Amino acid sequence: MDEIDGANVVARSLKEEGVEYMFGVVGIPVIEIGMAAQAHGIKYIGCRNEQSAAYAAQAMGYLTGKPVVCLCVSGPGVLHTIGGLANAKVNGWPMILIGGSSDLDQDNRGAFQEYPQIDAIRPHCKHASRPTTIDAIPQHIEKAVRTALYGRPGATYVEIPGNLVTETVDESTVKSSPPIPLSRPVSIPPESLVRSAAEMIKESQRPLVVFGKGAQWSERGPIQLQQFVTATGLPFLATPGGKGAIPDNHPLSIGPARSTALRESDLIILAGCRLNWMLHFGQPPRFADNIKIIQIDVSPEEFHQNIPTTLPLLGDVGETAQVLRKSLKGWKFDSNSKWMKTLHQKAEKNKETVEKMINDESTPLNYYAAYKAVSNFLCHKIL
Amino acid sequence: MDEIDGANVVARSLKEEGVEYMFGVVGIPVIEIGMAAQAHGIKYIGCRNEQSAAYAAQAMGYLTGKPVVCLCVSGPGVLHTIGGLANAKVNGWPMILIGGSSDLDQDNRGAFQEYPQIDAIRPHCKHASRPTTIDAIPQHIEKAVRTALYGRPGATYVEIPGNLVTETVDESTVKSSPPIPLSRPVSIPPESLVRSAAEMIKESQRPLVVFGKGAQWSERGPIQLQQFVTATGLPFLATPGGKGAIPDNHPLSIGPARSTALRESDLIILAGCRLNWMLHFGQPPRFADNIKIIQIDVSPEEFHQNIPTTLPLLGDVGETAQVLRKSLKGWKFDSNSKWMKTLHQKAEKNKETVEKMINDESTPLNYYAAYKAVSNFLCHKIL
Amino acid sequence: MDEIDGANVVARSLKEEGVEYMFGVVGIPVIEIGMAAQAHGIKYIGCRNEQSAAYAAQAMGYLTGKPVVCLCVSGPGVLHTIGGLANAKVNGWPMILIGGSSDLDQDNRGAFQEYPQIDAIRPHCKHASRPTTIDAIPQHIEKAVRTALYGRPGATYVEIPGNLVTETVDESTVKSSPPIPLSRPVSIPPESLVRSAAEMIKESQRPLVVFGKGAQWSERGPIQLQQFVTATGLPFLATPGGKGAIPDNHPLSIGPARSTALRESDLIILAGCRLNWMLHFGQPPRFADNIKIIQIDVSPEEFHQNIPTTLPLLGDVGETAQVLRKSLKGWKFDSNSKWMKTLHQKAEKNKETVEKMINDESTPLNYYAAYKAVSNFLCHKIL
Amino acid sequence: MDEIDGANVVARSLKEEGVEYMFGVVGIPVIEIGMAAQAHGIKYIGCRNEQSAAYAAQAMGYLTGKPVVCLCVSGPGVLHTIGGLANAKVNGWPMILIGGSSDLDQDNRGAFQEYPQIDAIRPHCKHASRPTTIDAIPQHIEKAVRTALYGRPGATYVEIPGNLVTETVDESTVKSSPPIPLSRPVSIPPESLVRSAAEMIKESQRPLVVFGKGAQWSERGPIQLQQFVTATGLPFLATPGGKGAIPDNHPLSIGPARSTALRESDLIILAGCRLNWMLHFGQPPRFADNIKIIQIDVSPEEFHQNIPTTLPLLGDVGETAQVLRKSLKGWKFDSNSKWMKTLHQKAEKNKETVEKMINDESTPLNYYAAYKAVSNFLCHKIL
Repeated sequence: MDEIDGANVVARSLKEEGVEYMFGVVGIPVIEIGMAAQAHGIKYIGCRNEQSAAYAAQAMGYLTGKPVVCLCVSGPGVLHTIGGLANAKVNGWPMILIGGSSDLDQDNRGAFQEYPQIDAIRPHCKHASRPTTIDAIPQHIEKAVRTALYGRPGATYVEIPGNLVTETVDESTVKSSPPIPLSRPVSIPPESLVRSAAEMIKESQRPLVVFGKGAQWSERGPIQLQQFVTATGLPFLATPGGKGAIPDNHPLSIGPARSTALRESDLIILAGCRLNWMLHFGQPPRFADNIKIIQIDVSPEEFHQNIPTTLPLLGDVGETAQVLRKSLKGWKFDSNSKWMKTLHQKAEKNKETVEKMINDESTPLNYYAAYKAVSNFLCHKIL
Repeated sequence: MDEIDGANVVARSLKEEGVEYMFGVVGIPVIEIGMAAQAHGIKYIGCRNEQSAAYAAQAMGYLTGKPVVCLCVSGPGVLHTIGGLANAKVNGWPMILIGGSSDLDQDNRGAFQEYPQIDAIRPHCKHASRPTTIDAIPQHIEKAVRTALYGRPGATYVEIPGNLVTETVDESTVKSSPPIPLSRPVSIPPESLVRSAAEMIKESQRPLVVFGKGAQWSERGPIQLQQFVTATGLPFLATPGGKGAIPDNHPLSIGPARSTALRESDLIILAGCRLNWMLHFGQPPRFADNIKIIQIDVSPEEFHQNIPTTLPLLGDVGETAQVLRKSLKGWKFDSNSKWMKTLHQKAEKNKETVEKMINDESTPLNYYAAYKAVSNFLCHKIL
Repeated sequence: MDEIDGANVVARSLKEEGVEYMFGVVGIPVIEIGMAAQAHGIKYIGCRNEQSAAYAAQAMGYLTGKPVVCLCVSGPGVLHTIGGLANAKVNGWPMILIGGSSDLDQDNRGAFQEYPQIDAIRPHCKHASRPTTIDAIPQHIEKAVRTALYGRPGATYVEIPGNLVTETVDESTVKSSPPIPLSRPVSIPPESLVRSAAEMIKESQRPLVVFGKGAQWSERGPIQLQQFVTATGLPFLATPGGKGAIPDNHPLSIGPARSTALRESDLIILAGCRLNWMLHFGQPPRFADNIKIIQIDVSPEEFHQNIPTTLPLLGDVGETAQVLRKSLKGWKFDSNSKWMKTLHQKAEKNKETVEKMINDESTPLNYYAAYKAVSNFLCHKIL
Repeated sequence: MDEIDGANVVARSLKEEGVEYMFGVVGIPVIEIGMAAQAHGIKYIGCRNEQSAAYAAQAMGYLTGKPVVCLCVSGPGVLHTIGGLANAKVNGWPMILIGGSSDLDQDNRGAFQEYPQIDAIRPHCKHASRPTTIDAIPQHIEKAVRTALYGRPGATYVEIPGNLVTETVDESTVKSSPPIPLSRPVSIPPESLVRSAAEMIKESQRPLVVFGKGAQWSERGPIQLQQFVTATGLPFLATPGGKGAIPDNHPLSIGPARSTALRESDLIILAGCRLNWMLHFGQPPRFADNIKIIQIDVSPEEFHQNIPTTLPLLGDVGETAQVLRKSLKGWKFDSNSKWMKTLHQKAEKNKETVEKMINDESTPLNYYAAYKAVSNFLCHKIL
């Protein structure tokens, strides 16, 4: 009969559910979890503060689409992650927080760093739970990974009481939870709505595609969206969160003409982004008063936020772009239209303005000049 | 220049967003809201306790698919609704709570029934907000109605500070929010998954359709699901929440053979219901050890809960049943199969057992006998 | 070796800590706790709704100064008590809530009425905890009783997971927690402040004693306060919560002249009551602009609320009244002073006005007339 | 008519309530508050992270007994302070957090860094509030300062909506709140209990004074406690939080014999410290099984925690030490008793052991050796 401790059950479960990276700050009572994680082949990145560990875990989770863990000690350790958890919640980034807590039998007595951690964390998470036996750990880990990744992503939390970390049980009694597929469930809008969207696009004089974080998060979003704009010839721009889903140097990218494009468009295909402060709440004078919106989103609650959505398309950004592309097969927006010319001219002009500032190294240095060095470094040294 | 008070702005906004019914208990400071609601044509049902008003509002919202409001006073009034709000959250039932609070300028001073209401309510809601000017009310109402109904439904809360109820502003300054469509956005699974599901169904020896609350909530769920089972000849049963989506007297209903059906099925098409305690967590011995599950749900987080979902179909129950039916066109499960015979025989036998108990009026009366009277009353007097 | 189940450990601990009464609604999983409580000699009062059970428990706890329990089931049962808990928090009334929850091994799986109960309850309590073993129960009960009663009283919550209720352990392993003294720790202000207060009282032309809930809650508050006013001849009135600490028919009671007394006093000795909405926030025109306040309270945070406290006396209302009485020994406010005459005349006049309304039985009946019947009933039938 | 903006009202109110120091990280929307604070003579210490700003503010507040402020931006800024707020709550350290939030008219629309901040902060605070007009700011600031300092100290939070920061009103309309006395209300135990404590002390064979954070926080605690031990000749030791209330080089300090003292004492006078993990929960074998405890504390809820308090003395640590000293006048513990000899011998022996380690500079360096350098630096360079 082999014995296994809680630390190894946590680590084994995380590994089985597809976790490859763990950011964290170790200390009592989670030191052994950090060690066990490494023993199970999870790469552990030690941080100086739980705050940055939490931000790092969610950024990596969002960028890779995989479950990434943050590990922290009880009390202040857990509380320092709240900024990260809240960011994950608001921005829809996945992360799994594993936090230690005081021993179960010291609950309520004034234990080391005892605090109502679950209550403190839950408002900033999609899900929070606390196994009270080693046997229960795999199911809690599985649910935490699944909930963080599936649907609108976000943070989840599993709290491991200190005594479970080092206590052992007969290994054969601890059933693994089945690994959940990391390829996430997706859906598309009903066919009739896709057809309506295609009609609206064809009728538009000044169409514009705007995409955001949701386009990045969609597993095949970047490629399907790029196929969509390339096939349809529609001009596009990205919000900061959407940057990179389609490269900025794509010929249809009109990002530098952002203000003009938003203000003068008569139809915006909004893909995985919100009409919040970053897009001026969709309001005049930054948008036309009677702007039409086709919005693609996985969260129906986002439709009609601040202004009416003319045609809401509920579904995965990439998959929806694909069915929309198929529905528009054979049609392409006129690359010689007045709209395209306006946008390209404006983009060109703005580029020149920025270019000048980038190359202006007079004292005092303007901040665009700094971008030049950054850009050179990123393009030549990293990529 | 006409003046309008906050009470009338609340009522007008609710009406514009499609609210027809309001349950509540009036008192300071919401008396005027109840009166204004009636003046705007909303039917007001006065209750004795906010607890029952909240339960009533959500039940009606769930059964009608429309936004139904609960109105309550500050302090204990709001707190009495928490049981209802939590039920709405857990079960996915829509409701909009409008609660009064103390005057803005008495915040923090020990006002009548002053309490941190928003904090108290938020954990039990999908969304909670508090306008601090009359102008802001329509947008808060619109978002509350939309969020309660769209996506997985639930409760929302708008808090109206007492002074806003009776203060007035120039009517022309209060912009209405556009009415949101009460027909809710829906989606369907990608075509390839629908085909896979169809294949799995064709290959199954002992298929079973189990549907729940989600089938009822889907706007066209009841009719599309009924078309699906009728066309495919698949036997079905409902959880308590799903009862009635397809009538129990449908020839394919095998509800009375529930235990046998769950235990011996090799493929369950789970439509809008969860594998929680009510379905024994999907575990043996109530289910086959290697049971296959095709699960249709709007919440991807529900897939793989407790046991793996063999094929997750993310989408609206009704719309998904429809595309699945089309994909299975021409195929029908053999009504003379051993599986159907087993189920029908078992159902028949169980019906007889129950029938006996229903008709047994010996003393002391068993509780099945009471059902008979209830059933007669419902079938003959009401329907 | 005798076995004991969790239900009996809960009941035994409550009894040992001085609990004599339990209000509640039984059901899964707390039925056995209700039975065990009765078996241990606790009187159980079954209610129809947890809401009223919670209000009843705290009212009895406040009126008797002893720990009174509310027992409820999981999920909605617990949530229905929140109105009561919040009232206990705001008003400083003691109560202990014992709530069932789902079994520990079903946490996180969709158990019957599973809900994050601790999180939901904690904001409305002084303390909330959840033992996860039977052995831990006595300490949790002891802390709950102590915290509810000691200091500023309020509600506490102990959550008993369903499986603990019926599981058993060797009786000898379950140590009782020592019973806490139900006589609560009290303190008094430093001597120099008591002397200053005495000086202020002697110098006042129009002094007034106003007492509230805190005077009732103080163990010897009613008797010591009555000794204080009798010895000093100071006129007094009570807030609704203070009513009865000194009988209304005491010759120094000038309650019927409330408005005059508050408005014209130059020094108010505020004993165990807050300057909140009920006392018009201590503001003109209901109080003199330069009103002096000697405030006796156990919560220093209450001093200076809304208007400055001239002399804050931190301590138990009764004990402080006693040291103040001793400090004033030999002094008595002039019963023939203009202030006393004004108050008594005004009180007399107001009594007459009310008397008339009480005796006016013309149609439609005014509501004072109803008080007459109520008063007769209470005075003659009950007392 | 002079205009004043919200930033200046915040700063002026803080100054009027006695704030001299503000730690913080400025940014939208609180830049102007930081500037106004400096303009009003408050010293502003800019930090790199709100986390450290919050820890710094409370440490300074605790050490100086004065109100110290932390200033932070909305969203992540506020959330980064939670570790500090929770520490303030658990340890009873005062601090006032001023946080910006999004503009009132952007609430609910997706504003820059919009987040339910009040809900997030309240569980970690004694009090949290949000003025919605400039006029209301002084009262909110006054209550925040008062609540942080009075009673058991802790953190408080005032949230300033972004638009209030820069909006202006007629200066004459903004009434200042009266400054609250920074000298905090205190109380002492009733005389009879003080006499009982004196008797217990006289009868003890092996008495011991243990003091903690509460002794430091008591305004005259350090001096009155030192007078008490000097007058009574009682041996003492401090918890880490109490260190320095009486200097370690006082002849009665037996800190180096901590384990022996705790284990063999028959009566501990526990002054402002808790029997939590740091004092081994008051349990054997670290304490005698029948240890008697006289506990002085401002929080009655702390009495009887983990083990029974033989004699609870509710009151300020310093003031209570003073009345106890007076009650013991003329009595002194025998400095030649076996108990004193045991303690001094053990202390001496332990000092020697540590001394050796401090002076052991062999490789690898033990960590006591590092203390030597630190100690030299602190004693010679700083002090």
